[in-house]
Amino acid sequence: MMNTRYVHGYSDREALRLNDQADTLDNIIHNDTIFSKDSLVLEAGCGVGAQTKIIAKKNPDSNFMSVDLSEDSISEAQKLIKALNINNVEFRQADIYNLPYKDETFDNVIICFVLEHLHNPKQALNELKRVLKNGGKIIAIEGDHGSAFFYPDSKYAHSAIDCLIQLQRQSGGNSNIGRELYPLLNSIGLSGISVSPRMVYVDASRPQLVEGFIKNTFTAMIEGVGEKVIKQGIVNRSNFKKGIKDLYRTAQPDGVFSYTFFKGYGTKN
Amino acid sequence: MMNTRYVHGYSDREALRLNDQADTLDNIIHNDTIFSKDSLVLEAGCGVGAQTKIIAKKNPDSNFMSVDLSEDSISEAQKLIKALNINNVEFRQADIYNLPYKDETFDNVIICFVLEHLHNPKQALNELKRVLKNGGKIIAIEGDHGSAFFYPDSKYAHSAIDCLIQLQRQSGGNSNIGRELYPLLNSIGLSGISVSPRMVYVDASRPQLVEGFIKNTFTAMIEGVGEKVIKQGIVNRSNFKKGIKDLYRTAQPDGVFSYTFFKGYGTKN
Repeated sequence: MMNTRYVHGYSDREALRLNDQADTLDNIIHNDTIFSKDSLVLEAGCGVGAQTKIIAKKNPDSNFMSVDLSEDSISEAQKLIKALNINNVEFRQADIYNLPYKDETFDNVIICFVLEHLHNPKQALNELKRVLKNGGKIIAIEGDHGSAFFYPDSKYAHSAIDCLIQLQRQSGGNSNIGRELYPLLNSIGLSGISVSPRMVYVDASRPQLVEGFIKNTFTAMIEGVGEKVIKQGIVNRSNFKKGIKDLYRTAQPDGVFSYTFFKGYGTKN
Repeated sequence: MMNTRYVHGYSDREALRLNDQADTLDNIIHNDTIFSKDSLVLEAGCGVGAQTKIIAKKNPDSNFMSVDLSEDSISEAQKLIKALNINNVEFRQADIYNLPYKDETFDNVIICFVLEHLHNPKQALNELKRVLKNGGKIIAIEGDHGSAFFYPDSKYAHSAIDCLIQLQRQSGGNSNIGRELYPLLNSIGLSGISVSPRMVYVDASRPQLVEGFIKNTFTAMIEGVGEKVIKQGIVNRSNFKKGIKDLYRTAQPDGVFSYTFFKGYGTKN
């Protein structure tokens, strides 16, 4: 059984960040996350419920089984879903590499922002495929930190982003996994695979994304690993601070920021 | 009067490449390049007519004045447009920094893949604004080589791309200008500015773009400056060849390639 360390940590601030993120990106990522009526859907790696609340609300006639390795995250997610009066989600602690379900249990499976943290995403996808019914779909959604570019450009900003990529790699994960969704879904033998990039392009004409994405999601995420990467000697404090400053600089009225999420699906048959 | 050296050269092969490119990207870039009936449109920097043929065909009820600094390119473009029986384009040799037109001559202006080559894109845009009627629109379309990412990732491939970026910079241009369209259009005081990214995402499910974009457009473009950048000592032959090989590698069935064009417009008033 493999273990997963969650690179962003489990702090309250991190839980808040993930919820901010989901609120802002809701439409870009989940506009078409629609399951058929009475579907039983497995959400693999629900974390604190940031995606759970969106997809469960969008699909009131589907039932969700949301699992995560972390009991603490499950407990947070449960509180969130209860507070929002969402009634179509059941939670369970489970290991994504070894799910406590029989073959062909679920009509569909969704996995959001989880594969990036795994040592062996292919093995996890194969396990998801095992519990998926024939004819069912796996939907996978991932970011790709290597897709980020911005104006003004800054080598310090790129190097601060690289810190998180390196940290993720040290934990056995892959921050640039978004671009790999097509070959990954293909490698487990799904059919009808389709991957669509979801670019978040932000300039001053989109003030909500300037706040919600550049500042409160992306830069906050990079900033959040600062102490860890400085302590580990991946970067020195001064250069990291320059990088964070330059990332915030892209939120100025003449700045531009671009980041791409990838959403892919494939069918078991 | 400023002069522009065109970094890709004026060879026949280059002319062919530009036409391949436009055919493949036609829909992604020009799906919404629509001018109102009887518009008089200035196309600034038409080159060999690769974009001219698309926009003139798409807008049979508009009239185009297509200008370029190079007499040779104009002559190529004229041949192409004549061969295609397109009758709504007039060509003229002109300097984009000093256009031979009175103020407020054109209903609209379009400029595609030209700003990247200019020493002073803002000055050029101001000149385009001068010849634009009040209430008219400037449409600008640019690529951004820094937006390219791919799977498998490769530092040699990135470094080969950087060669073209450096070459462009030496010529006074900017290969990463796509991301700057918003601040550029804003800097000349247009209103209602909107920039939309046009990502070309290619995986094995899109074989036409594998051939037409990864191989015949992007990698061919990088390959095309090889002798020049090796001669200038920007890169050694062995590393450049590795980079090109790795770019072609992304066209394999498990490869992925992503590149973003930007299309922006703004109104004079």
